[in-house]
Amino acid sequence: MGIGRLQKLRPGIAEKGLDALLVSQPENYRYLSGFTGSSGWLLISDSHAILATDFRYTEQAKNEAPYCETTQVKGELHNWLPDLVSDLGWHKLGFEADSVSYHSYHKLSETIKSKQVNLELIPTTHLVEHLRSIKELEELELISKAVELTDAAFEQAKSIIRPGITEKEVAWEIEKLLRQEGSEGIPFEIIVASGPNSALPHARPTERIICSGEPVLIDMGARISGYCSDFSRTLSLRAQRSNPKADKTLQEIYSIVLTSQTTAIEGIESGMDASQADGLARTIIEQAGYGGAFGHSLGHGVGLEVHESPTLSSNSSDLLLDGMVFTIEPGIYLTGWGGVRIEDMVTLEKGKVRVLTKSEKCLSF
Amino acid sequence: MGIGRLQKLRPGIAEKGLDALLVSQPENYRYLSGFTGSSGWLLISDSHAILATDFRYTEQAKNEAPYCETTQVKGELHNWLPDLVSDLGWHKLGFEADSVSYHSYHKLSETIKSKQVNLELIPTTHLVEHLRSIKELEELELISKAVELTDAAFEQAKSIIRPGITEKEVAWEIEKLLRQEGSEGIPFEIIVASGPNSALPHARPTERIICSGEPVLIDMGARISGYCSDFSRTLSLRAQRSNPKADKTLQEIYSIVLTSQTTAIEGIESGMDASQADGLARTIIEQAGYGGAFGHSLGHGVGLEVHESPTLSSNSSDLLLDGMVFTIEPGIYLTGWGGVRIEDMVTLEKGKVRVLTKSEKCLSF
Repeated sequence: MGIGRLQKLRPGIAEKGLDALLVSQPENYRYLSGFTGSSGWLLISDSHAILATDFRYTEQAKNEAPYCETTQVKGELHNWLPDLVSDLGWHKLGFEADSVSYHSYHKLSETIKSKQVNLELIPTTHLVEHLRSIKELEELELISKAVELTDAAFEQAKSIIRPGITEKEVAWEIEKLLRQEGSEGIPFEIIVASGPNSALPHARPTERIICSGEPVLIDMGARISGYCSDFSRTLSLRAQRSNPKADKTLQEIYSIVLTSQTTAIEGIESGMDASQADGLARTIIEQAGYGGAFGHSLGHGVGLEVHESPTLSSNSSDLLLDGMVFTIEPGIYLTGWGGVRIEDMVTLEKGKVRVLTKSEKCLSF
Repeated sequence: MGIGRLQKLRPGIAEKGLDALLVSQPENYRYLSGFTGSSGWLLISDSHAILATDFRYTEQAKNEAPYCETTQVKGELHNWLPDLVSDLGWHKLGFEADSVSYHSYHKLSETIKSKQVNLELIPTTHLVEHLRSIKELEELELISKAVELTDAAFEQAKSIIRPGITEKEVAWEIEKLLRQEGSEGIPFEIIVASGPNSALPHARPTERIICSGEPVLIDMGARISGYCSDFSRTLSLRAQRSNPKADKTLQEIYSIVLTSQTTAIEGIESGMDASQADGLARTIIEQAGYGGAFGHSLGHGVGLEVHESPTLSSNSSDLLLDGMVFTIEPGIYLTGWGGVRIEDMVTLEKGKVRVLTKSEKCLSF
């Protein structure tokens, strides 16, 4: 990164008629300043970029955010912000309305009133998130590395999964693989859900023993220099001949989900509404009679957060654009039986989808 | 748990003149309902306990929260809450002002106005956090198990640390120990900070090689059934004779921090202001001339969150009471040289501190 991202943001601040913007969302201030601490505030005006943090992070802030002035503050926002902003002569301060709590806002307002500071607080949304949704080349490279890690871990995981192993054991083995290959922690708890457990889209790994013939849903992510990957596959250990029925249902559902995903990958284009993209995949599942069993959205942006802008859902108002990175992950979940989800990460390039995830999509192995 | 926690909360809701309380903070709704999903809302009135969650978590909510009615909702709060609350005939709804964003509040208010629903939104703070700060026996047992895990991992970690190993390697070995012994993930990134890195209170492990004679600060936690532990020690590999100076400074600082901590452990009593507790430890460090080098608070409550109520700091207004569980963790940090922190978890019983952490406090090993 560099000072460029601050410069890209400044016109948006001016357009809103703001003297400055208070950035409080951790990934937003990381994106703009480089500071990775969990507690900080970034104040950006036309001429200033001030990174405020407490005693615990001051040294780190100085090292990580060379394009910002670092200032050490103590306590909550209302304890120090009114004086600081007043000294700088700002009167219209934007804040991130999705990240500041009602209580913080209220205390800040009260302090401004009681101190008779000439300062108006103006709620903003998505100013930085919007910039973040279009990835720079450097970001795409880091995301691609994170995607490679999940691809490689999945390849190795297939040799671990055998009848008799538990979901928890598989999840822990996958996590060790990811971490040992360089993932900075894991961006979310790994899902290994077998049989009926796979009907829970956000299942936690249990002590359940994995059997052949049933669905095994794996969902995992890696993180490289802050950037995440997100990946799902559904597998089935080769079924016993004694129970061909379950196997047939699974094959049918797998095939519908795969067709739904392929249709979205082939059909999504830059300039398309995210709701329309969701519809491409959803229609396939609805037409197959499983509309009610695909209860989540088709996908979500991925970057410094594992869930970020854009949102690919039926009621999204986002627009899909070149440079965005998001997941395409349709699923069908049948309570008591199980579920199937197939998830790739993709980017939009020259108007079309380029799939970043390389792992094959085979149900049986 | 059981239905008891809901019953304990209800008088507080009535006292505030509320028809119901909307609980949105994840650990708060977990505490009250048992539901561990990352997206949910709990509505509690005199006669109802309604757990609202989306498609992804509905099955899980039904299984985990037997004392609640589960209802499946779609979208953000303002999309469904006004109708639901209106149907129930509630007119005064409390919400958690620390957990609801300004934007969510604003959208909810606007929807209530435009739908002409007779509903007043009333901000509340700390209603559930206050209950959570006094631990039940069952909770104390889980916390004690988490504390035992960190004690055991530290004992094993000492055999791993040798000259030539990197901070990152030690951190990963500790994490594997914790996880293999049953910790559910880790509640925060493990700190292993050596030499000058230990001057950063929240340092991240780096590739720096650990040398003898310098401070090595370790800070780690475990989690059992949701309940956390938090633990710090500062160690030094036996120093080389060629550099006795650094060793002497380290011994002096270690001794001050240890005296500060012991003084707090011996002096803190139930009924004491948390700010006064902080002062017991801080005075020792100030009198030794290092007041400016102890820039964080003395401690914090630990439970379902690794940082929760009470806060032991100079400007805290919390009152320390029997049944609370918190850390006592003074430190001295000298930029460019290094730092020392010693952290135990304690509980207040019959008016006095009982230390839960068992690990010894020896600088050299």
